[in-house]
Amino acid sequence: MIGKTIDQLAVGDKAEFAKTISESDIYLYAGITGDFNPAHVNEAYAQKTFFKARIAHGMLTAGLISAAMANQLPGPGAIYLRQELDFRAPVFIGDTITARAEVIEIIKDRNRVRLRIWCTNQDGTVVVDGEALVSPPKTLSEAH
Amino acid sequence: MIGKTIDQLAVGDKAEFAKTISESDIYLYAGITGDFNPAHVNEAYAQKTFFKARIAHGMLTAGLISAAMANQLPGPGAIYLRQELDFRAPVFIGDTITARAEVIEIIKDRNRVRLRIWCTNQDGTVVVDGEALVSPPKTLSEAH
Amino acid sequence: MIGKTIDQLAVGDKAEFAKTISESDIYLYAGITGDFNPAHVNEAYAQKTFFKARIAHGMLTAGLISAAMANQLPGPGAIYLRQELDFRAPVFIGDTITARAEVIEIIKDRNRVRLRIWCTNQDGTVVVDGEALVSPPKTLSEAH
Amino acid sequence: MIGKTIDQLAVGDKAEFAKTISESDIYLYAGITGDFNPAHVNEAYAQKTFFKARIAHGMLTAGLISAAMANQLPGPGAIYLRQELDFRAPVFIGDTITARAEVIEIIKDRNRVRLRIWCTNQDGTVVVDGEALVSPPKTLSEAH
Repeated sequence: MIGKTIDQLAVGDKAEFAKTISESDIYLYAGITGDFNPAHVNEAYAQKTFFKARIAHGMLTAGLISAAMANQLPGPGAIYLRQELDFRAPVFIGDTITARAEVIEIIKDRNRVRLRIWCTNQDGTVVVDGEALVSPPKTLSEAH
Repeated sequence: MIGKTIDQLAVGDKAEFAKTISESDIYLYAGITGDFNPAHVNEAYAQKTFFKARIAHGMLTAGLISAAMANQLPGPGAIYLRQELDFRAPVFIGDTITARAEVIEIIKDRNRVRLRIWCTNQDGTVVVDGEALVSPPKTLSEAH
Repeated sequence: MIGKTIDQLAVGDKAEFAKTISESDIYLYAGITGDFNPAHVNEAYAQKTFFKARIAHGMLTAGLISAAMANQLPGPGAIYLRQELDFRAPVFIGDTITARAEVIEIIKDRNRVRLRIWCTNQDGTVVVDGEALVSPPKTLSEAH
Repeated sequence: MIGKTIDQLAVGDKAEFAKTISESDIYLYAGITGDFNPAHVNEAYAQKTFFKARIAHGMLTAGLISAAMANQLPGPGAIYLRQELDFRAPVFIGDTITARAEVIEIIKDRNRVRLRIWCTNQDGTVVVDGEALVSPPKTLSEAH
């Protein structure tokens, strides 16, 4: 249960995690975070907006990126330092989102890895785009 | 149910939202996002790590910021464009997190508002720090 | 709140529990167990499979059998010793599943009861079939 | 997103998935399955039983085995045919459960794989033991 150390990582390494976003995902996420924006939980309101239907919280979609990173790249023991997220397009109930992470820079002397992170829907549209900076695990005693 | 337009916003405007992070918050968040990093859901593993106990997902803590923005500043109808997050310190089960947002720039011609966003725990330690860029609502028909 | 003791049970005793399986059941179950098989949570993937749609986890369907046993046969205080499950047919979102248990053997000297357990969908198709071995309650102080 | 075919599997292949069982896991599982046995959701009742505290549903613990199999061995596309489970010891709130699967037989002509499956707690006690029979994926079009 320990992820890849910096010596086991290379520019171009990739990971992904995919899931169809359900209404219950959005409702549970609202319940956890307190973000009850009517765009997410009020269908009558949402029908009158530009998007015409309830949309998922941008940060919920972005959370799938953590799954790709936490489970595979670099995996357990990595410390998340920074995340930059651009919200590009709405995610609707029933959209299938693929979150991807790809190593774009290895900063060995500071034990840092920079990744491009992005999410696409079932049509290939990029809905979230950004970067993450993580510190890969060294040894288990130092890991979290 | 419509938030503040750009003309109703000023540099220095503030909002906050606070909540004690429960074990069930972390478990539901793992279940929604698929992020089962043992640092979050495996106490036996977590006790051997630097932090000595399970910690909340950084993106879960950051989700509270959306609540502050969605509910108050600018409120319903705002479009989230960008979020930058620095994860500064761990959040443990039982920690009370206050998420804050403060307007730091108004870009009227492009209908954009830049906010500093940050979260502190019950001891005042900053656990998440960053910025957000949002587009405040114009009229309901344009809002989401 | 105590179930039937072995002297109150007879071969042929029956119990049942029925429920329509929702998308939120499947999503919560994935979140509890960590089983994010795309067959359960990825509609785009599932449409390309033999079953053409997301299906419920087999062990989720089987969980309804426990409800039939725990609530009625033998009821509170029984100890579950063994369960054998054959997964016969897929369960789709919206299927109404009836879980059934029927006593098929009473082993008095070892305080054991063997039950046939099975689940059918709204069309009468058997989706799960199997057997369970339980130890019925003796007195409350011994029960769990 | 396709798991290992029978030619990619060998006797002795192993997978595992670990998680601390929370009170919320037990409560959500009760809510999904309808199994409200007081041994699981009634602390006042449970304190008077042999185990002195609420215990997890045996089938909830067994569900972690599916995660190990669905995510890794054989992975996406496998069809679950049969599961045999012996419930050996109680699982309490806060126990950290490691679910394991190990290939014990490859039946090539029928495309079947037999696995030993078992769960241990943080002390190494086996809480669930058994076997599973799965049909590994052939091609995506046949998979589920």
